[in-house]
Amino acid sequence: MQIYNQPPPSQWPALLKRPLINAPDLEATVGQLLQDVAQRGDTALRELTLRFDKVQLDALAVSSEEITEGARQVEPELQAAIQLAHDNIARFHEAQRQESIRIQTMPGVACWQKSVAIEKVGLYIPGGTAPLFSTVLMVGVPARIAGCQELVLCTPPQADGSINPVILYTAQLLGIDKIYKLGGAQAVAAMAYGTETVPAVNKIFGPGNQYVTTAKQIVSRGGVAIDMPAGPSEVLVLAGENANPDFIAADLLSQAEHGVDSQVVLLAFSAALAEQTLLAIERQLESLERAEMARVALQNSPAIVVQDRAAALHLINEYGPEHLILAMDDAEQFAEGIRNAGSVFLGHYTPESVGDYASGTNHVLPTNGYAKAYSGLNLDAFVKKITFQQLSPQGLRNIGPAVERMAEAEQLTAHRNAVSVRLKTL
Amino acid sequence: MQIYNQPPPSQWPALLKRPLINAPDLEATVGQLLQDVAQRGDTALRELTLRFDKVQLDALAVSSEEITEGARQVEPELQAAIQLAHDNIARFHEAQRQESIRIQTMPGVACWQKSVAIEKVGLYIPGGTAPLFSTVLMVGVPARIAGCQELVLCTPPQADGSINPVILYTAQLLGIDKIYKLGGAQAVAAMAYGTETVPAVNKIFGPGNQYVTTAKQIVSRGGVAIDMPAGPSEVLVLAGENANPDFIAADLLSQAEHGVDSQVVLLAFSAALAEQTLLAIERQLESLERAEMARVALQNSPAIVVQDRAAALHLINEYGPEHLILAMDDAEQFAEGIRNAGSVFLGHYTPESVGDYASGTNHVLPTNGYAKAYSGLNLDAFVKKITFQQLSPQGLRNIGPAVERMAEAEQLTAHRNAVSVRLKTL
Repeated sequence: MQIYNQPPPSQWPALLKRPLINAPDLEATVGQLLQDVAQRGDTALRELTLRFDKVQLDALAVSSEEITEGARQVEPELQAAIQLAHDNIARFHEAQRQESIRIQTMPGVACWQKSVAIEKVGLYIPGGTAPLFSTVLMVGVPARIAGCQELVLCTPPQADGSINPVILYTAQLLGIDKIYKLGGAQAVAAMAYGTETVPAVNKIFGPGNQYVTTAKQIVSRGGVAIDMPAGPSEVLVLAGENANPDFIAADLLSQAEHGVDSQVVLLAFSAALAEQTLLAIERQLESLERAEMARVALQNSPAIVVQDRAAALHLINEYGPEHLILAMDDAEQFAEGIRNAGSVFLGHYTPESVGDYASGTNHVLPTNGYAKAYSGLNLDAFVKKITFQQLSPQGLRNIGPAVERMAEAEQLTAHRNAVSVRLKTL
Repeated sequence: MQIYNQPPPSQWPALLKRPLINAPDLEATVGQLLQDVAQRGDTALRELTLRFDKVQLDALAVSSEEITEGARQVEPELQAAIQLAHDNIARFHEAQRQESIRIQTMPGVACWQKSVAIEKVGLYIPGGTAPLFSTVLMVGVPARIAGCQELVLCTPPQADGSINPVILYTAQLLGIDKIYKLGGAQAVAAMAYGTETVPAVNKIFGPGNQYVTTAKQIVSRGGVAIDMPAGPSEVLVLAGENANPDFIAADLLSQAEHGVDSQVVLLAFSAALAEQTLLAIERQLESLERAEMARVALQNSPAIVVQDRAAALHLINEYGPEHLILAMDDAEQFAEGIRNAGSVFLGHYTPESVGDYASGTNHVLPTNGYAKAYSGLNLDAFVKKITFQQLSPQGLRNIGPAVERMAEAEQLTAHRNAVSVRLKTL
């Protein structure tokens, strides 16, 4: 991690450059794989799982015995932790429920809007080095609260063809019983098109590697919605008054351990604090299991010293970090100015990890600057809002002539006529 | 329009098949065009406008004089109609504002969510046969209410290099002064990447032809958000008790006049009513300006007689129409069962045209079955929701051990450590 002392704003873009994701290269490969699943269904899924996961599957679906048996293996202390996280996430997403809106825009013209759950949702849970059961909570809890009727979960099998027990426990906690041993682009294809075994869904949620992301983008052009484009995870930590270098170092490392392409940015008002933090990082790295990965990520990570709060705010909003930690005394006041960020962690006792697991906020968040236009996952993502309108005869009298005039100006005679033919009868 | 009498549900998908949109063919062509604009900026925009719109532009931007002059040409009656529509749309979208949500998920763990406007939005207004000034209202009004700071509007120039006066009037009404004479994929490229003249935006809104849609999909893979995928417009009319064949015929025709690929579906409980409606369509076609276009669209449009309300509801939710007209006495009760639709028009005096222009609901809606997963445009689309959390030391004591346990189970030691290092100091 290199320290940059008060670089001019013109240099920020270069310092904060995110790694290029060259998706176009994958388009053809992934496209072909999707076609294969669309055409040959389960047969293709079995072959692809053998090729990529080196597992010969008898059944693609996890049986109810496997679920129960797997869930039983999870020790009580971890079960309790997951339950606590579940309850907090449920409380925060429950609070996001919205009442229907109903107004009269003019006398006799009633308009309303109602949230309706998306019927069938697909939840993708990545495999890889660690079983990301926390993501089951982050996509499954809001899906349940929204009232989605069918939850389909895909996650890649382990080497022995089983699914990690903690994932099964968490799924069972949410009453998810349609679980399939599928990973990668083939899982996305299965949920998008449906196969003999896997039901097709209306929207696919969950993070994944570049293959999964490319697959989600391709299927999204053909009728299936997706949550958001995903990129490497990132954090920006602002070290303000009374920031503790040990705390900040731990936060930066918890991001850096995600992967070699993780984005880690330290922002400080004093070079001395930045230097102390770098020393603390070195100390903490010694006892970290994923130290090697973290070291690589840190090599591309800048520590930027800015001269004042205005500059810090400016830089943060330009960057639009996925995670933003405001390690300062009056974090809430400072946060008022935040326009672009996924999730914000305030004060000295709010590490990003609490949001990753259990505070209640969602951890599926916009990366890669998408925070400028995208929200993190929330209840909205699991519903659509349908609008309704009903006019009384008087309502049509009030509004009709304006509609006729506008339709005429847009040269849409039949649009005008749909009003005229009714007005004539009144 | 052919009548199908009580076809079994197994035949519905074939009857309701939407036209295939073969976007893949356009990917390469449009991709190249986008690259060109990204690399050569305004020069490319001028060349492309000459090639596609046959217009040699001096300035890409509409001057303030042009705006004022154009707006002045709009006759008072049309101005008043647009003002009425504006006010209704503003009222309905204003009602969609959401309070921030703030709760304690556990003692000492505060979580909140705040809506923040997307800073820079691009509004695409198609040109073509008719000036779609109503779309300026539908994208511009919610952008203003959300508080977006920069509104950039692109619309193709007319043959003489000018912009339609009614579009300029409507833009002026909304205080939009960044207007560019750009259409098609090149307009999308300009707003996505920015050029010497056109500012880059965070999200692009508005309907368009297949080139525009493809361009929006391509730029959405690289950091710019888009509102939703667009397809040919569609309506499903359910003719229930006391439905008036003349009214229904007018509604079907107002959809059919949109284009030869418009989707028009009539659903009725009686074959006699369906036949009367077809006769009414023939009568009304005689006096329609766009009759020829409508005739082609109607050739591919089915009239389906279903046996009861349950079958009608089932079919509607399977199809997920963009516009749904419930021409029946107790429309509101029936509407309770609607799960998949963009915007719903209830009763005998609510033609789709009122929603297209002036009732207050938005007319940018999900087509092509996307209503199963997408909302129509609403205030949400112009904001992102940022989440925040702040823990007190006691809050971290309450939640910390669960986070440590979960991080450990996911093998993310540094995540655990970010909690431990803090707990140790308490």
